[in-house]
Parts: sequence; structure tokens; C-alpha cells
Amino acid sequence: MSSYKASLEAAARFLKQHQHFLVVNHVNPDGDATGSLLAMGWLLRQLDKQVTLVNEGKTPAKFMFLPGADDILNASERAEHPTYGTIITCDCADFARVGEVAAWFTQERELLNIDHHPTNDLFGTVNLVRTDAAATAEIIFDLVKHMGLPLGKELATCLYTGLLTDTGGFRYSNTTPYVMEAASELLAHRVEPAAIAERVLESITKAHVSLLQRSLQTLELTDNDKAAYLTVTLTDLIETGANNEDTEGLVNYGRNIEGVEVGVLFKEVADGKVKVSFRSRSEVDVAAIAKSFGGGGHVRAAGCTVSGTIVEVKKAVSQKVSAALRECGNE
Amino acid sequence: MSSYKASLEAAARFLKQHQHFLVVNHVNPDGDATGSLLAMGWLLRQLDKQVTLVNEGKTPAKFMFLPGADDILNASERAEHPTYGTIITCDCADFARVGEVAAWFTQERELLNIDHHPTNDLFGTVNLVRTDAAATAEIIFDLVKHMGLPLGKELATCLYTGLLTDTGGFRYSNTTPYVMEAASELLAHRVEPAAIAERVLESITKAHVSLLQRSLQTLELTDNDKAAYLTVTLTDLIETGANNEDTEGLVNYGRNIEGVEVGVLFKEVADGKVKVSFRSRSEVDVAAIAKSFGGGGHVRAAGCTVSGTIVEVKKAVSQKVSAALRECGNE
Ligand SMILES: [Mn+2]
Ligand SMILES: [Mn+2]
Repeated sequence: MSSYKASLEAAARFLKQHQHFLVVNHVNPDGDATGSLLAMGWLLRQLDKQVTLVNEGKTPAKFMFLPGADDILNASERAEHPTYGTIITCDCADFARVGEVAAWFTQERELLNIDHHPTNDLFGTVNLVRTDAAATAEIIFDLVKHMGLPLGKELATCLYTGLLTDTGGFRYSNTTPYVMEAASELLAHRVEPAAIAERVLESITKAHVSLLQRSLQTLELTDNDKAAYLTVTLTDLIETGANNEDTEGLVNYGRNIEGVEVGVLFKEVADGKVKVSFRSRSEVDVAAIAKSFGGGGHVRAAGCTVSGTIVEVKKAVSQKVSAALRECGNE
Repeated sequence: MSSYKASLEAAARFLKQHQHFLVVNHVNPDGDATGSLLAMGWLLRQLDKQVTLVNEGKTPAKFMFLPGADDILNASERAEHPTYGTIITCDCADFARVGEVAAWFTQERELLNIDHHPTNDLFGTVNLVRTDAAATAEIIFDLVKHMGLPLGKELATCLYTGLLTDTGGFRYSNTTPYVMEAASELLAHRVEPAAIAERVLESITKAHVSLLQRSLQTLELTDNDKAAYLTVTLTDLIETGANNEDTEGLVNYGRNIEGVEVGVLFKEVADGKVKVSFRSRSEVDVAAIAKSFGGGGHVRAAGCTVSGTIVEVKKAVSQKVSAALRECGNE
């Protein structure tokens, strides 16, 4: 038996042995965290278990259409709460990711850790971790199959949403044949792909649109149109009433322009502090650039926060970007 | 034997019986038309057939990464050309869709018509048509399986691109379990989902970005933020150097705003002529609105061209949109 199969078996045993579960996902939950949390709820209720679902904060509005989302408790709203001895964490790479929900756990808790992050430190009593899974939802799909449980529309919808969001709408390189096979089986259970995609991928806020309009006005193409720079000022953020979610995706507009290799977004997060986000297409290692400013990330997506005015930070960053482009043979 | 299976068999026979094929797709080819055309090229070469691929015009730049795309002839560039007696049409709902390539056909030609449009009028000698297929690429995938041919990386890449584009990146309701099953099998043949998605779905032109910035400045929300209006003037089109492709997708920005039910784009196409594009989210039948102005389309995506200034057309259209929203109970 492979070690992954053994961990599926151990997870199944964990679910059968206990009666009441507290299921928690990570702070600022994304689609996979929320979908996985809800999927575990549906799975456990099928097994006639009692289940409490909780997040440190409020579940984002765009995931509230998911079946069962109304039942997720918001820990920040509850001064009083029971404590639980049987915990399941979803999509948490380490214990700290559960945030203040940790106060809901008893000292001698048993914990099942279900996750796909390569950095998962196996903090559970039982660890169901597969780091080549595209999403935690994919691992829960494995668990459903392993336990021979039926897939209903609700469970399938939650799992599909996790797969969809963690693969960027089946656009990232983690979109494996197995992801598509799982998606196919989930769709066969009356999942509505168009309605879900519209809600979790295409929906934008008014503030996002206003910010987009403002930042596109700042678009600057340099280095023979190989680098694209966009800026968002503190004033923009205040006047549009934008929060952090509203700035998501802006950096992609620069990188997605035909011929552009590196897209950079400068976001003034406080007076004299600029958050810099980098995206590259196929050649430049933007993690290295971000690292030289004390940040980090992946080769194609990275970031850092730099002290200085936007003009100063832009000057320093663009020099490094130009140098990196020259190194890759882009003059 | 089902009639579809019979048509797969008839198509296979057509391919085996002849030796030299002219394969053509429709004018202004999209990803499915181009992917299908190229896939037929790879399939026929596997069968040791001679094959000529042709389109009425130039293959769009964003599909030129597809394996074999350099070999597609541009009919508009060739005053002199041979004529062909064995034709395969890909993704063409009727004969007129091949455009001026029709002049390349002999009078007594044999023609295999491979398509998925519900309006296909079965104009071929042999018709391989399945109207519940998401893409012509899906039907060619069926043909490959039916004939027991191997899927190489090239063939799989062309078919995946057709599936991807005709399902809007697996976001439309035609994203069936079978589409995902086919995608899974294609991905297993070294297809690169991220590279393809980036090129065919995410790549934007400089002119598109400029137009987007200008049109977002015109954003108007009415009817309790249930309707979103965007405008593009002739001046915008001229000053940004935009073509028709560059305006694609603009209308979605309005519709995608949280809470908006109807998004409308007014595009001044000539002095005194405005093209109106409609998108709705879940309630309003925009085809009915478009029809009342002499246009048409689908319930959620429709369009019309109206005479008048932008101000006049907008006034007339917005009255109908308001009425439609009221009918659906959106005051
Ligand atoms: Mn995840
Ligand atoms: Mn098509």
C-alpha cells in the first residue's frame, strides 16, 4: 500500500472513530479553503456525524452561494464558544493558519490535517497531505472515492469550486489530467460550471473597476515594450473605497499585453511604503528580483514591500527589471 | 449502431478512400476553427495522406503558436491556386462560411462536413455533425478514438485549444463531463494547459488596454446598479488604432460587476451608426431586447446595430432595459 493510500485509510479511520468534529480552514479563505471546509461538512453529515464549521473571520461574499455556506461560524464574532477535541484542518500549511480558531481547540485534541501545500509541516495527529494535488478539494475527492461515498450535487459543487479556483480556472500548470478527470466526475453530479465560474472567477466589484480604470491610465511600457508598469496610489485606494481584494489581478493586465515579458504593479500601501507585485511570462525570474528587495515568491509571480515614494521605488525596481530582461537577451 | 456512430464510420471511410485533401475552416477563424483545421492536418498525415490547409484570410496571430499553423495557406494572398476535389470543412455551419475558398473546389467535389453548430444544414457529401458537442474539436477527438489513432502532443494541443476556446476556458454551460474527460485525455499527451490558456485566453493587445481604459471612464450604473452602460466612440477606435477584435470582451466588464444584471456596450461603428452589445447575468432576456431593434442572439448575449447618435441610441436602449428589469422584479 502506498503511503498516500495509507494516509487515506488513516483519515477514513479518524472520521469513523469520532462523533463530533470541528472543521476549520485558513484565515482569509480562498475558494479551495471554503470549498474544502464545506465539502468536509457534507461528507461528515453523510456519515451521520455532528459537525461544526468555522473560520477565523467572515466567509467572503463571493463564496456565500456555496451550499451550506450560511452554516460557517465566524469565530471573530463569538466571544463565548465551546472547545473541541476532534479537529479537521482544511488547506492549512501549518498550525498558525487556523488563526484565532486555535482557541477553540482543547489541549489534548486529535487533529486531521488535510492539505496540498508543499510547505505543509505535518502538524496533525493524522496527516492527509499530497503536495502534487492542485487543491485540497482534490484530496477530499480522493477521500470520497477511497471511502466509497456517494457524490451529491452539494458535495460535488464544493469540490469543483476548490479545483476551479486553485487552478485559476483550469489555467495554471497544476491543471493535470487527474484534475480534469475529477472535474468530469463532479460535473456529472449536476454541478453548474457556468454559474460557479461566473461567481468565483468573473465577478468584479465596483471598486475594482474604478481602480482598474485609474491604474490603466498610469500604464507605462518600457524596455522595447517588454516591461509594463502600473501604479495605484493611496489616494486611488481611498477615493475608490478599495480593499485588498479589489486590487487583485491588476498586475496581470500589464503582463498580459502582447509582447510584454514582465508586468509590475506599484501599490502605495502607506505613506513611504510601496507594495510591488511582479508577474513574468516565460523568461524572467521575478522571484529573484523580489528577493533582492527583501520579498519572495515564485519564478513567474512574486512580490515585495519597499520603503520610499512610488517614484523612488519604481526607479530602483525598473533598473533591476531592465537588467533581468537584458540577461534574458531582451534588449 | 447509433446514427452518430454511423457518421463517424462514414467519415473514417471518406478519409481512407481519398488521397489528397483540402481542409478549410470558416472565415475569421476562432480557436476551435483553427485547432480543428490543424488537428485534421495531423490526423491525415498520420494516415499517410496529402493535405493542404487553407483559410480565406490570415490565421490570427494568437493561434500561430499552434503546431503546424505556419502551413495554413491564406487564400486572399493567392491569385493562382489549384482546385481540389476532396474537401473537408471544419466548424462551418453552412457552405458560405468557407468564404472565397469555395473557388478552390472543383464542381464535382466530395465534401466531408465536420461541425457542431445547431444550425448546420448538412451541406456535405458526408456529414459528421453532433450539435451537442461543445466544439468541432470534440467531434474530431471522437473521430480519433473511433479510428483507433494515437494522440500525439501536436494533435492533442490543437484539439485542447478548440475545446478551451469554444467553452470560454471551461466557463460556459457547454462544459460537460465529456468535455472534461476529453480534456483529461488530451492533457495526458503532454499538452501544456498554462501556456495555451495564456496565449489564447489571457493575451490582450495594447489597443484593447487603451480602449478598456477609455470605456471604463464612461461606465454608468443605472436602475439601482442593475444596469451597466459602457461606450466606445469612433474617435476612441481611431485614436487607439483598435480593430474589431480589440473591442471583444469589453461588454463583460459591465455585466461582471457585482449586482449588475444587464451590461450594455455602445460602439460607434460609423457616423450615425451604433453597434449595441448586451450581456445579462441570470434573468433578463437580452435577445428579446436586441430583436426589438432588429438584432438577435442568445438569452444572455445578444446584439444589434441601431441608427442614431450614441446619446439617442442609449436613450432608446436604456428604456427597454429598464422595462425588462422591472418585468423581472428589479425596480
Ligand atoms: Mn488550496
Ligand atoms: Mn466551434
